Amino acid sequence: MAIPCPPLIGSEKLSMEAGPLSPLSSPPRLVLTQDELKKIAAYKAVEFVKSGMVIGLGTGSTAKHAVDRIADLLHQGKLKNIIGIPTSKKTHQQALSLGIPLSDLNSHPNVDLAIDGADEVDSDLNLVKGRGGSLLREKMIESACTKFVVIVDESKLVSHIGANGAMPVEVVPFCWKFSQERLQQLFYYSGCMAKLRSNGGENGEPFVTDNGNYIVDLFFKKDIGDLRAASDAILRLPGVVEHGMFLGMATTVIVAGELGVTVKNK
Amino acid sequence: MAIPCPPLIGSEKLSMEAGPLSPLSSPPRLVLTQDELKKIAAYKAVEFVKSGMVIGLGTGSTAKHAVDRIADLLHQGKLKNIIGIPTSKKTHQQALSLGIPLSDLNSHPNVDLAIDGADEVDSDLNLVKGRGGSLLREKMIESACTKFVVIVDESKLVSHIGANGAMPVEVVPFCWKFSQERLQQLFYYSGCMAKLRSNGGENGEPFVTDNGNYIVDLFFKKDIGDLRAASDAILRLPGVVEHGMFLGMATTVIVAGELGVTVKNK
Repeated sequence: MAIPCPPLIGSEKLSMEAGPLSPLSSPPRLVLTQDELKKIAAYKAVEFVKSGMVIGLGTGSTAKHAVDRIADLLHQGKLKNIIGIPTSKKTHQQALSLGIPLSDLNSHPNVDLAIDGADEVDSDLNLVKGRGGSLLREKMIESACTKFVVIVDESKLVSHIGANGAMPVEVVPFCWKFSQERLQQLFYYSGCMAKLRSNGGENGEPFVTDNGNYIVDLFFKKDIGDLRAASDAILRLPGVVEHGMFLGMATTVIVAGELGVTVKNK
Repeated sequence: MAIPCPPLIGSEKLSMEAGPLSPLSSPPRLVLTQDELKKIAAYKAVEFVKSGMVIGLGTGSTAKHAVDRIADLLHQGKLKNIIGIPTSKKTHQQALSLGIPLSDLNSHPNVDLAIDGADEVDSDLNLVKGRGGSLLREKMIESACTKFVVIVDESKLVSHIGANGAMPVEVVPFCWKFSQERLQQLFYYSGCMAKLRSNGGENGEPFVTDNGNYIVDLFFKKDIGDLRAASDAILRLPGVVEHGMFLGMATTVIVAGELGVTVKNK
């Protein structure tokens, strides 16, 4: 269902409490920035959070808004006894600085709700995640939750997985070139190009995940087809730790677009 | 086929060149030690090595004999232009100290032959490996080889995988307890007990693999059934890096026992 933004997202609240979202107050601006859309989706998702819940805290520019919002509601006393399970070192730092009580999966193996962004969402609510590099911890936590709410702006909707960018695969550093080559061969039929992610610095060093591993980004020219089969084939390669396809995991996807918020349920 | 030891293993050579194996020379001793059996299997496997080959060098007490033997033959000039691909830091050190030219999978992604031990071998030549902790690198290298010769003494033959000890699973350190619990639940039907491997020291610190990960050992009370299904189920758990079942990978298994050497081919 597509619903106009203001009633659903509580635009009045947003205009009072969320400074950067002031364009939402009257007079309405015609064009929302991508970050504003992300914030709208994030705030909507936080409506699912109830006091006493164990909450998986996502990573990335969209999830960051949700973590901020949860902290606001805690400080306002509208939420109580929340325990956050951060999905990355970065989110851990953010949540810590905001005073959200934190724990981990070892102590809280059952997570009530996780809220996180995604890089791609297909029509079956399958996701690509991990372009920010946190796919493994995200997948561990989001596979342990009763409800997994994904928040995206409409640019993330795709016709098929891999349609608009990289599908990341976390690999052990040992003989990463070998793993990269095998991954590329695995999806030869889809015109796959596999590329080690660099840390973006001048030295061209590899990007290193929170778990000390590397990321090989897969770029597909064509639809890879059966996603479950692709997932198993990737995981069977020794040297692969995890991949960024989150299949059948999202229970709700909240999409913020120019025309309003769309909530898709599994 | 079971063949008496002496003709097959070249007992004369062994009695001259391999001091510790002197019990094999006449008069024959009735009981061979386990290490002598391992050495017999290892020497037999090295007969598959030809000059010019790229060789995966296994890890563990049995594979160590094979590496020693390859070095001997290189020094005697009976083998030339061998490139060794070590399956662990330990084997790398051993091979380096013996002067075997070394490389890795990045430079040599096609391995002609790998020789390695195993902790268990079933009647279909499926293996359990990794009780020494090197399962990931072993699996990477042994999945890349044309021929994979496994060398064991007869105590390693089992009726089913997991029959006589641990099936190791390499997991990321992040929330390892969560992964351990999930692994145990996965094989609940087989009476599974999952246990983090310690480094054996007084402090009870976890054992750390060459890749910086932990090992969760799975102990089964009953046969786990379909091994391929079990393998996929383990690999689908986020947090799991690799497991110690090597299914359909061995092309030859050489078993040394009191009554001789048995060579089993796939």
